Amino acid sequence: MSNERTEISSLGEFGLIEHLTRNIELQNVSSVLGVGDDAAVIDHFGKQTVITTDLLIEGVHFDLTYTPLRHLGYKSVIVNISDVYAMNAVPTQITLSLGISNRFSLEALDEFYEGVYAACNKYGVDLVGGDTTSSQKGFIISVTAIGEAATDKFVKRSTAQKGDLLCVSGTLGAAYVGLLFLEREKKIFTESPGVQPDLENESYVIGKLLKPEARKDIVEFFSTQEIIPTSMIDVSDGLSSEILHLCKDSNLGCVLYEEKIPVAEEMKKAAYKFEIDPTACALSGGEDYELLFTIPQTEYDKLVLNEEISVVGYMTEAELGAHIITKGGGKHAITAQGWNHLK
Amino acid sequence: MSNERTEISSLGEFGLIEHLTRNIELQNVSSVLGVGDDAAVIDHFGKQTVITTDLLIEGVHFDLTYTPLRHLGYKSVIVNISDVYAMNAVPTQITLSLGISNRFSLEALDEFYEGVYAACNKYGVDLVGGDTTSSQKGFIISVTAIGEAATDKFVKRSTAQKGDLLCVSGTLGAAYVGLLFLEREKKIFTESPGVQPDLENESYVIGKLLKPEARKDIVEFFSTQEIIPTSMIDVSDGLSSEILHLCKDSNLGCVLYEEKIPVAEEMKKAAYKFEIDPTACALSGGEDYELLFTIPQTEYDKLVLNEEISVVGYMTEAELGAHIITKGGGKHAITAQGWNHLK
Repeated sequence: MSNERTEISSLGEFGLIEHLTRNIELQNVSSVLGVGDDAAVIDHFGKQTVITTDLLIEGVHFDLTYTPLRHLGYKSVIVNISDVYAMNAVPTQITLSLGISNRFSLEALDEFYEGVYAACNKYGVDLVGGDTTSSQKGFIISVTAIGEAATDKFVKRSTAQKGDLLCVSGTLGAAYVGLLFLEREKKIFTESPGVQPDLENESYVIGKLLKPEARKDIVEFFSTQEIIPTSMIDVSDGLSSEILHLCKDSNLGCVLYEEKIPVAEEMKKAAYKFEIDPTACALSGGEDYELLFTIPQTEYDKLVLNEEISVVGYMTEAELGAHIITKGGGKHAITAQGWNHLK
Repeated sequence: MSNERTEISSLGEFGLIEHLTRNIELQNVSSVLGVGDDAAVIDHFGKQTVITTDLLIEGVHFDLTYTPLRHLGYKSVIVNISDVYAMNAVPTQITLSLGISNRFSLEALDEFYEGVYAACNKYGVDLVGGDTTSSQKGFIISVTAIGEAATDKFVKRSTAQKGDLLCVSGTLGAAYVGLLFLEREKKIFTESPGVQPDLENESYVIGKLLKPEARKDIVEFFSTQEIIPTSMIDVSDGLSSEILHLCKDSNLGCVLYEEKIPVAEEMKKAAYKFEIDPTACALSGGEDYELLFTIPQTEYDKLVLNEEISVVGYMTEAELGAHIITKGGGKHAITAQGWNHLK
């Protein structure tokens, strides 16, 4: 961050919006009209529009003492477009509303927007609107993402079928371990301000927390392989919680195999430093933004082409419940212990 | 409000969402999929999608000491769909995200949603998604509205033409006077809690502030009369500010006649009690949610059919600037003194 400080109040609301949106170049033909009017106009040609929204509040969803603003801007976009991918759709536009207190400088906001635009550019998404206002306390971020799905190709949570394979992309649990590290270092720093944080060795898990990616590649893989998952959800609250969503909404049970849950070696090592079980991190941690989905067993041959996808179990009838088979052979009911922001 | 109090935490996040959305019945054929999945799906048939978003923060945009939650819910929807109408479009869906502190009971939230649903029903809009989270302090509301415009019939701010008539719907300034009354009564009540507020006589201006409406009727009138305004904006920050937006974005000037600015008799009387000028309230007050637009002079004959529309001036070339001709015949530059939330 540079040492310059321009007071936001010196620009006025409209000056601020002009400043923040001056570099926008619309990428999609469908973005007929973007920032600068009462609303954005999106043109579709027989496709279906997908829309999703998230509200991120300082002190609840993020801690600015260890979250660089550029990363926060990036992540604010990722969190939303991950929901669009989870519909088997392609994100095309976002709107962004911010509530900002006067402790923010323009330079700080610029950093935030750099992250927003970096994510937009990487994922081919246009920022087409928003609202900027003051907040008495804390930074507030509201993102709405819009996407397109080919007609009737979108994928819900409620349509998994008995016998379907339960699959997940990437690896799980690392973001949660990253959070544990950052919270520990924050505590040490608060108690002994002279001690510099030692985070270098944990850049993997910290990176997974601070700069997650959305699984565009998986949705593209589905498209090229002509796979349509029977159900899908993104993993934002931990694997257990998301599995229970699919089971409940599809009125099914499932069997999950602990040994099949994908975890990265770096995450395992980091978890052991905290003397916690990597499986627990995968099940109950959050913010992985991987895709959890079900496919018919007949599609299995296509799946093995993609090393980024793991089959972790299968769907059963509802009466059998949702269970995990542990490495030791034990069988336990899956319980949701995901991040519940309202507790 | 009933005396029951159910703690939100007793429901959990998903239980809360289920509770709050249990009565939704989708109204539009295009609402293919609403609340309950990662994203909502909207189907369009060769039409253009309009999307707009607003962030409302307690202590900045509203004061819960005198704003009933039912009214706040209603207004949160109105504020957004007013932006859709200002595009000459018809609102079809909204998403709603809330940040709520634990001082809110479920009954209080229900009241808020009653207002939201009342507005949705009145305007034929579907609530199709959202996010609910906790806030450490204050109530936070983020609404995104989506609408449809017939292809290339949407109206921007930047396309007014020299010589066009400048028009506005309804009357202006009352919401601002309503706010002055409520702020005064709050002050009196804070200083002398025994004194009951005396608001009955000002129900007109207070109603305009607390329960505004969006000008669906004006957009329908345009449609039946085959009028397409050359530019349009909704009046949320005061007439001056909005006129300057049209002038700047269209690269034009304008002449505004004070005597033509529509104000209600009830508002005038209320303003005089405060010893303020009704015209100043119309120019610099806010939250009227009327429509300000320009049309070619050739369309004037159609306009006179609608008593809800006033011609207040005309557009000039940019070099002439934006001016108001006062009742006394004076000529002054129009300056924006609208509500600037960042000051």
